[in-house]
Amino acid sequence: MKIPFNKPYLTTKAEHYLLDAYRSYQHCGNHKWNLRCIDYLKKRFHFREVFLVPSGTAALEMGVFLCGLKPGDEVILPSYTFSSTATAVLLAGANPIFCEVEPNTMNIDTNCIPKLITKNTKLILPIDYAGIPCDINRIEKIAADHNLSVFVDSAQSLSSRTSTGDYVGTSSDLAAFSFHETKNFTCGEGGALVVNKEEWIDRAFILQEKGTDRKQVLDGLKSKYGWVDIGSSYLLSDILASALYSQLESIDFITNARRKITDSYLTSLKPFEDAGFIKLPRPPKECSLNHHAFFVIFDSKENKSQFLKTLKTEFNVSAYIGYQPLHSSAKGLSLGYKPDDLPITQDLASRIVRLPFYTELGLNRDHLNYTVFSIISVLNSIYQ
Amino acid sequence: MKIPFNKPYLTTKAEHYLLDAYRSYQHCGNHKWNLRCIDYLKKRFHFREVFLVPSGTAALEMGVFLCGLKPGDEVILPSYTFSSTATAVLLAGANPIFCEVEPNTMNIDTNCIPKLITKNTKLILPIDYAGIPCDINRIEKIAADHNLSVFVDSAQSLSSRTSTGDYVGTSSDLAAFSFHETKNFTCGEGGALVVNKEEWIDRAFILQEKGTDRKQVLDGLKSKYGWVDIGSSYLLSDILASALYSQLESIDFITNARRKITDSYLTSLKPFEDAGFIKLPRPPKECSLNHHAFFVIFDSKENKSQFLKTLKTEFNVSAYIGYQPLHSSAKGLSLGYKPDDLPITQDLASRIVRLPFYTELGLNRDHLNYTVFSIISVLNSIYQ
Repeated sequence: MKIPFNKPYLTTKAEHYLLDAYRSYQHCGNHKWNLRCIDYLKKRFHFREVFLVPSGTAALEMGVFLCGLKPGDEVILPSYTFSSTATAVLLAGANPIFCEVEPNTMNIDTNCIPKLITKNTKLILPIDYAGIPCDINRIEKIAADHNLSVFVDSAQSLSSRTSTGDYVGTSSDLAAFSFHETKNFTCGEGGALVVNKEEWIDRAFILQEKGTDRKQVLDGLKSKYGWVDIGSSYLLSDILASALYSQLESIDFITNARRKITDSYLTSLKPFEDAGFIKLPRPPKECSLNHHAFFVIFDSKENKSQFLKTLKTEFNVSAYIGYQPLHSSAKGLSLGYKPDDLPITQDLASRIVRLPFYTELGLNRDHLNYTVFSIISVLNSIYQ
Repeated sequence: MKIPFNKPYLTTKAEHYLLDAYRSYQHCGNHKWNLRCIDYLKKRFHFREVFLVPSGTAALEMGVFLCGLKPGDEVILPSYTFSSTATAVLLAGANPIFCEVEPNTMNIDTNCIPKLITKNTKLILPIDYAGIPCDINRIEKIAADHNLSVFVDSAQSLSSRTSTGDYVGTSSDLAAFSFHETKNFTCGEGGALVVNKEEWIDRAFILQEKGTDRKQVLDGLKSKYGWVDIGSSYLLSDILASALYSQLESIDFITNARRKITDSYLTSLKPFEDAGFIKLPRPPKECSLNHHAFFVIFDSKENKSQFLKTLKTEFNVSAYIGYQPLHSSAKGLSLGYKPDDLPITQDLASRIVRLPFYTELGLNRDHLNYTVFSIISVLNSIYQ
């Protein structure tokens, strides 16, 4: 048996929708299937406005431009994240200020945020790692105290709920979601920017349409459109939107399947945590998760490496390391950071492993049992 | 009968390819169908390296970042172009310097370029309007004399050949192509960046992958990738690439169909040009065209408006205006331009019309005859 790390889930209706979109002769952005997805997302998750874009990265970029960042402005984000969170900040000409994470969720450590705030700080940009919501309430309190905007990189967390019961992406000024092949709900490459801040919505339509006021022409308010602002082509082909819609329709089915993986991992790994060998995710109790991923923090990086290697070679099961912290990457160093600047992040990232996680694994009891058996076997061999 | 301005062409194999891509479980960028398209483009058009990206706009942005533009740098481009050509320059922090066009092709007037060159100029960024190649040989001569890079916005001109017989996009440092729904060869939303400058290729792979050296891991040169540079998600879903491949296979068929439209328009409109009422495109004789579009420059903007209105209301045939010049748009004015700064562009843009142009029109003799009949009828009514 071979267990991959990730595999996209194929929905039954997707092929029908793909052909419908293709035969519609309307293949570019914001046509029928885009509008269906947007409507679905707004109704189900209570987002104020939704823009479908080519990727989660594009959603981050559109968002930081919408924040009106200028050269010299500072953005606080965790070092433990994907490069796109930081490249978006750099593209806007602003400076990324990296913050520590905390080990229960691997999300930004809100206790460390206040000391990073300067007169140049304009934005806090946390992420929801592994689908676990960051502490948005605390972050918004800090932001309000310092007149900062909040933009959550929720690439991994669509359909998770925060400790107040709200869906992620509903309370911050902006939220970015990803529909990349590796995500719970996917169309290969795709993303969404949620804009909750009313005053930014009109400009978002302009940024999406290459800096033009084309939306006003489509709405019948003008006869011809013109160039009025910066922008890009922040649009998702209707062909991809049709595949995405089939996934959104399946959110409950997909989430239930994935929940089984979380439950299996938690149950089977708890004895190793109780014995002090590993540490498991500990999301706030009131949160509900979309079951995007599952991470394990080992007691040493040697044991982590041994685990990954043995799991692959002896059982053909693929687990992966986490992010290389951005502050200590080549680009982070060129920005003036040293690895020791964020010792907690540096240490945790060296010991973290992500276990195999994909919808089909939750639907196939044999594969899930084999995966758990393999993981337990390797842990037993290491910690015997 | 109703004649739209544009309609994407559906290829016979596309549905088969779309389902194959979907069933492959590999939906993100640079998988099988991406590689097939890239291979096809490189072999057929002799491009040095090709990157499939989410849009022509994204290709422009990736290209300007690759040029290493810095704040204060200047980029010379025509004012008569789509907003994306200029927004890409602004995103890179550089200043767009707008140049006049000439009426035979509506492309950049190369006689006007030298006087715009300053010590800050880094790049010349012409476009190939309506699929007609710009005077790339003259532009490259000027660039060489002043140590400038050349990046051609060839969004509309894939498969056209320049006066030396070379395909567009082969001689400049960079070229951007679009596969938007409105283009000859389309997948709804998509684009390609061609990189001919050898020294820029390695960095292009990094910019495409969100600023990481992931390509080195895929090539087996490193065990884990890290953040090393700026970048974005300049990738095209393999689902869209499968549809694109079906179009690339049909380039000759599509081009032959579209040639019939050009020929019909030229033949039927020549008497009106000979009488001095209108002006038709006059591409350099040695060029060969991809037949992307067809424009007519009227003798007055009043006659232009009358033509558009009558053609639509009396015959249900949709023609369109051209670009609003960028220098005199709201954003251009905010950059310090005045409409009179580029009087030739301002005048020509006020009198130009684009006629209906799409592959199916060239395949349906009745529709093409009706379109030409309608156009001639309206011209006769105006210039009786």
